[in-house]
Amino acid sequence: MTLTSIDATALESGVRSYSRTWPTTFTKAQGSFMYNEEGDQYLDFFAGAGVMNYGHNNRHLKEVLIKYLAGDNVVHSLDMLTTARTDFLSTFTDQILRPRGLDHTVMFPGPGGANAVEAALKLARKVTGRESVVTFTNAFHGMTLGALSVTGNSMKRGGAGIPLVHATPMPYDDYFDGDVPDFMYLERLLNDAGSGLNTPAAVIVETVQGEGGVNTARREWLRQLSSLCKEQGIILIVDDIQMGCGRTGGFFSFEEAGIVPDIICLSKSISGYGLPLALTLLRPELDVWEPGEHNGTFRGFAPAFVTGAEAIRTYWSDDDLQRSTIAKGAFAESALNTIVADHPEHGLSAKGRGLARGLEFTNPDHAAATCRNAFEAGLLVETSGPRDEVIKLLPPLTLTNEELARGLDILRQATADAVA
Amino acid sequence: MTLTSIDATALESGVRSYSRTWPTTFTKAQGSFMYNEEGDQYLDFFAGAGVMNYGHNNRHLKEVLIKYLAGDNVVHSLDMLTTARTDFLSTFTDQILRPRGLDHTVMFPGPGGANAVEAALKLARKVTGRESVVTFTNAFHGMTLGALSVTGNSMKRGGAGIPLVHATPMPYDDYFDGDVPDFMYLERLLNDAGSGLNTPAAVIVETVQGEGGVNTARREWLRQLSSLCKEQGIILIVDDIQMGCGRTGGFFSFEEAGIVPDIICLSKSISGYGLPLALTLLRPELDVWEPGEHNGTFRGFAPAFVTGAEAIRTYWSDDDLQRSTIAKGAFAESALNTIVADHPEHGLSAKGRGLARGLEFTNPDHAAATCRNAFEAGLLVETSGPRDEVIKLLPPLTLTNEELARGLDILRQATADAVA
Amino acid sequence: MTLTSIDATALESGVRSYSRTWPTTFTKAQGSFMYNEEGDQYLDFFAGAGVMNYGHNNRHLKEVLIKYLAGDNVVHSLDMLTTARTDFLSTFTDQILRPRGLDHTVMFPGPGGANAVEAALKLARKVTGRESVVTFTNAFHGMTLGALSVTGNSMKRGGAGIPLVHATPMPYDDYFDGDVPDFMYLERLLNDAGSGLNTPAAVIVETVQGEGGVNTARREWLRQLSSLCKEQGIILIVDDIQMGCGRTGGFFSFEEAGIVPDIICLSKSISGYGLPLALTLLRPELDVWEPGEHNGTFRGFAPAFVTGAEAIRTYWSDDDLQRSTIAKGAFAESALNTIVADHPEHGLSAKGRGLARGLEFTNPDHAAATCRNAFEAGLLVETSGPRDEVIKLLPPLTLTNEELARGLDILRQATADAVA
Amino acid sequence: MTLTSIDATALESGVRSYSRTWPTTFTKAQGSFMYNEEGDQYLDFFAGAGVMNYGHNNRHLKEVLIKYLAGDNVVHSLDMLTTARTDFLSTFTDQILRPRGLDHTVMFPGPGGANAVEAALKLARKVTGRESVVTFTNAFHGMTLGALSVTGNSMKRGGAGIPLVHATPMPYDDYFDGDVPDFMYLERLLNDAGSGLNTPAAVIVETVQGEGGVNTARREWLRQLSSLCKEQGIILIVDDIQMGCGRTGGFFSFEEAGIVPDIICLSKSISGYGLPLALTLLRPELDVWEPGEHNGTFRGFAPAFVTGAEAIRTYWSDDDLQRSTIAKGAFAESALNTIVADHPEHGLSAKGRGLARGLEFTNPDHAAATCRNAFEAGLLVETSGPRDEVIKLLPPLTLTNEELARGLDILRQATADAVA
Repeated sequence: MTLTSIDATALESGVRSYSRTWPTTFTKAQGSFMYNEEGDQYLDFFAGAGVMNYGHNNRHLKEVLIKYLAGDNVVHSLDMLTTARTDFLSTFTDQILRPRGLDHTVMFPGPGGANAVEAALKLARKVTGRESVVTFTNAFHGMTLGALSVTGNSMKRGGAGIPLVHATPMPYDDYFDGDVPDFMYLERLLNDAGSGLNTPAAVIVETVQGEGGVNTARREWLRQLSSLCKEQGIILIVDDIQMGCGRTGGFFSFEEAGIVPDIICLSKSISGYGLPLALTLLRPELDVWEPGEHNGTFRGFAPAFVTGAEAIRTYWSDDDLQRSTIAKGAFAESALNTIVADHPEHGLSAKGRGLARGLEFTNPDHAAATCRNAFEAGLLVETSGPRDEVIKLLPPLTLTNEELARGLDILRQATADAVA
Repeated sequence: MTLTSIDATALESGVRSYSRTWPTTFTKAQGSFMYNEEGDQYLDFFAGAGVMNYGHNNRHLKEVLIKYLAGDNVVHSLDMLTTARTDFLSTFTDQILRPRGLDHTVMFPGPGGANAVEAALKLARKVTGRESVVTFTNAFHGMTLGALSVTGNSMKRGGAGIPLVHATPMPYDDYFDGDVPDFMYLERLLNDAGSGLNTPAAVIVETVQGEGGVNTARREWLRQLSSLCKEQGIILIVDDIQMGCGRTGGFFSFEEAGIVPDIICLSKSISGYGLPLALTLLRPELDVWEPGEHNGTFRGFAPAFVTGAEAIRTYWSDDDLQRSTIAKGAFAESALNTIVADHPEHGLSAKGRGLARGLEFTNPDHAAATCRNAFEAGLLVETSGPRDEVIKLLPPLTLTNEELARGLDILRQATADAVA
Repeated sequence: MTLTSIDATALESGVRSYSRTWPTTFTKAQGSFMYNEEGDQYLDFFAGAGVMNYGHNNRHLKEVLIKYLAGDNVVHSLDMLTTARTDFLSTFTDQILRPRGLDHTVMFPGPGGANAVEAALKLARKVTGRESVVTFTNAFHGMTLGALSVTGNSMKRGGAGIPLVHATPMPYDDYFDGDVPDFMYLERLLNDAGSGLNTPAAVIVETVQGEGGVNTARREWLRQLSSLCKEQGIILIVDDIQMGCGRTGGFFSFEEAGIVPDIICLSKSISGYGLPLALTLLRPELDVWEPGEHNGTFRGFAPAFVTGAEAIRTYWSDDDLQRSTIAKGAFAESALNTIVADHPEHGLSAKGRGLARGLEFTNPDHAAATCRNAFEAGLLVETSGPRDEVIKLLPPLTLTNEELARGLDILRQATADAVA
Repeated sequence: MTLTSIDATALESGVRSYSRTWPTTFTKAQGSFMYNEEGDQYLDFFAGAGVMNYGHNNRHLKEVLIKYLAGDNVVHSLDMLTTARTDFLSTFTDQILRPRGLDHTVMFPGPGGANAVEAALKLARKVTGRESVVTFTNAFHGMTLGALSVTGNSMKRGGAGIPLVHATPMPYDDYFDGDVPDFMYLERLLNDAGSGLNTPAAVIVETVQGEGGVNTARREWLRQLSSLCKEQGIILIVDDIQMGCGRTGGFFSFEEAGIVPDIICLSKSISGYGLPLALTLLRPELDVWEPGEHNGTFRGFAPAFVTGAEAIRTYWSDDDLQRSTIAKGAFAESALNTIVADHPEHGLSAKGRGLARGLEFTNPDHAAATCRNAFEAGLLVETSGPRDEVIKLLPPLTLTNEELARGLDILRQATADAVA
């Protein structure tokens, strides 16, 4: 094969996007770094959109993965019972769910996050006999039709080619800068028999909106939302696909708020190694599926069970990772505040929680330029938000303090050059 | 962990299905066989629902996969350029598409088949500005909302919890046992401005309906369908997720009919090793996506690119596999006809094409009993069809003649015991 | 006011249609005739699209109407009790429903036929908890969103501006010229759990499709449809808006077939005088409405009750009108057959039942020209059918034999001139 | 007929409602009064839900109506040209539209208000190519599927039997008691590309919500809404079905705010005599209908044209009626405030504009009891609002000052007795 990667893009649909932001061909990756074909090193504060929480080719997980594959163990088996599946199920239940007081059953809805969301929405509708879902401004839940209908981004919605219905957007926390009492509108509509709001089957929410611009919901907002759902008999779905698996500190991002969602969606870092896996966790009383009523070919990818179980044993047997993430998050927050303070005339702001951090620009061009500068200086960061105006930082949770500091230094300089 | 696998099912959603059919815990797999924890061997005529066309832990692919992983190559990178991605793209284009006269561009819509279908439907609607889709009786395309709306099975549709709209079912080939001219109804509705059929954006079709009961469409039926779509300006989508990758002989199941679909969906065996991967192939003039208008986290799983490219090089550089599949298919057909002839009083019938074969019972209980008997005798086969009345055979294409004969012998005995 | 009527069209929306077909200003009308401002007389075989079954300004009805109005009786009162309402309800029940063995309750759904259809569809969905409706090719049920969704005409459907969903068209009687057994497709789809047809709440049907091209359903087809609905637990709605009130002979057009629909829609000639009124008749066990769950301002227009009750007393106390309609229908059929025979080279055909008659052309231009010629010769007839290829005859049932013969003579000449 | 009216209710669907509130049989009506069969007189502050703005059997209109009918003029003619139609069109355009600076064309969408709303929604969607509509809390627009989908009342929505989609409710003026800036939420959602709100084709609004509880929108709120629609390219539909025809003073209820809606819906009092008629007024550039793309049998009821034109000539040639309505409205407001002040402990409040007035109770039982008491004392008033907690006053605009005072006196006593 003599074709270059850039040439190969001609063979591919124009829908590709990251290869436009980072026009180089990556080949190796280890820990917090990726390397292109020329051997250039990139510090990765993107982490595969939150998939690589434990770093690329994590040594612990790599060992068990290769051993598993080398041993001719079952790779693919849908929802047949396998040793790997049983190990994952019991490890996840024993070390993650039960210690947190969660009695949820585990559903494997398919290989990706959108499958977890689709299954959650289907079940909420089936259980309640209602069809409408309350979403929040700037939500992102996926690209399949059900998941897309509860996603906010208008460009992505436009891709559906049909009217997206059955979802009503409500203001996310702080959407009005604190000028309006939380849930005033939603609560009023729910309690007014003449409001015209179809009583919803479910509310679906992210505790931190990654794609939406690293918007964080306060604990009390989440608690109020949970109470409201309980009072009204509405199923609360937390999409923890990007913010779970320790991204904000605790394994689940909602732990801090002390709430118990009815349904929880997980994916991205759940396998710990970039292997496709997704989970939909269900309060037992909601688990009214008939056998096979939802299925999917890649819903039991055994290598992902193997690395997923090992990741839990390695990182969630004690609270070291959680404490480290919170500490590094605080460090990052401080560094971002310094960048904000560097440029008072540009109205930047720092956002986020744990190691999900954002740097918001008033001018989206500055965000884009900062990304480009960072890339040239060897740092991978992407933008998010409805106008791509927020730089989103999702470094591996396992990065060293030195790597964190180095990345933030590059970002500081990249920002300075962008707004100059 | 002292929990048994059977105990672990209590931790899991009641939606699980295959573990009910085959109540044992699998651990190893090699070639045409799977093994449970007790070491019992099972000849696998299920092949992970058509994912393991090249057999379990295929030696050729295993070697490149482990080498790739051991070398700390990039595992996960969304749609960033990687060496593995470029190699797959150019290999697939050069060795599969272009030799077959297909100028399609390749889209990676997400990790599973439903993603490929969702992307196909979205694009067809976006291109045409129409929303309706023609499907066929007993179609199966997936469990996400868009894919489910074009799927026939009423139990699975019921899981949506909302009315599934925008799709109209038409009779699949031979739905009326030849009593009605092909496409009479569809063609008449399309040409009658008063018919009430919304002009469709697309027709989506499987050349052989695996889940629907191993129903095969004749070449001339597919050709007529293709012509009808061209005449009417309707996009033809072939879902080749289960029947592609050589299952019926040629790489694509539609080759034999000499048609060129506008959009082609691939998944299941495309990685060749059970690694989640899906493709949506687009005629270049339809590729009107904006960058990022459809995306998805696991849409570029590099290990799957590596095994997928190697599978193409290994099995599709010449026509050995294709010829072998056709020959084995003929053998299987003959063996199934023998089983049919064994029990003239029970109205069995043999169905299928290549190594996608079906044995249809008039009494679904007989099909279930045959499956159970086969399992006890060490053969994995599942049922399909709207009443689970068809035993579906999808052995690895790489099985030996002896394995094929052995499996069919077990099936013959299992059937005899079932109908006795 | 010196504005001419033609000038006044500039003040009106371009949606107007009949004033384009007949560019003259009508002022008076009596019995079977309309008169324009110049005093030209037109024999009316259009009858206000089936509203004037008893002729224009019918003497009997006029007398009671003017007396009612002159006496300051209640004109408008929604669904408050009035003397006029009670009289209509008891007269309709006693003289129309009960003698025909119908125990339906009467609902006043609003002033027009579309209201009757909307109410029928809403109730069928509420009762069954299902949402889908089976319609027939070339059906016409109205222009409001619910009624439009079960209407076939693609131009009219396009006016909705949103995808029309929840309805599936099935072939009307003889759609395939007898080549396919009746209901083969519908029955098969209903009985196949994998067909992809959402189980319908209701089937809605016209016994003769007026707007659709004067297509008639045979008695045995209607009986089969009724049986199928019963077997499957599907509500059968007969839209008798245009074909009821004696148009085909009996008061209800379905009497002849001996079926009892679950829901019946009436409007058009039910007031007998062109006064807006509509009825939805419900089998008592389906009448699960909550008080006020469906309402509407003009649902109890008292003058229409007065003329409606009088029309029943005048025309339905014996079977004279019914017999006369059947006899005149036979005469018309014979005359139309003569016209068909006049032009063997043009492939005309005669259609219809009772005094709903059609003359179908293969070339729609001939139908349009025939209409124009007829208008110039003093006869009002309109076209129908998906291509406006059928001349539809709906003369007042009360016309004389001489008027009928005269109109058919004009039509014969108009046709001859058109196809010449 | 010996059946009593009460007996006759057994023949009717349980959906009837007003006959439950007022269990007596009305027979005559004149001016501001209705009379039952026993000759009891009822002062009518209901006016047929706003249909009888000029009083029952209005002398001026009665004369032209009977003359028209007696003269065998055309009664029913769909949208054929008639002398009556031309007269109405030119009178309405010359005396109502043009003097108010409105260049709208007139569409006759069918006999009732729901038809006017359905046509407005269809056209807005067709023109914009968008499907979503913004509605307001407690809106009421009708019972057909399109109109119902933009109506707020949950009981009425439940009657649809299918999920009502394509509409998003926004807070009506003062929904949050002034705590939130007007349109803050709507404006923010429209301007945020990530909000998840489908860009609407149209906003539909009532200037005073009659059914919703006599909620009034301030002029500045309406002006802001109009500006917002213009800025965003959204079609503004004012449903003036109940509040137009002088109910609030000016002919159109929006005149006072100085706005020009893109589409205006009229019905109820437009014929002036209780004869079914509806109008949809369109800015000329929006009138993109194809001929016949929307139609309807009773869309040109000539007697309604006759009384409608005469009503305009009688009441809208000068501003007497407008001034009288405003003066009477002020009197009513003052009287209602007195009632409110009578019972400070019950938290009553007075609402409304012109002669659309409301008396809101905190306890809906008090509203119901007040209605009953009023009925017994010879006054017809109904309740509205999501909990039926508001007594709605819609007296004929032509009532005398004495009648107004008398009705308000009865109401005062009825209230006192109810809350005692």
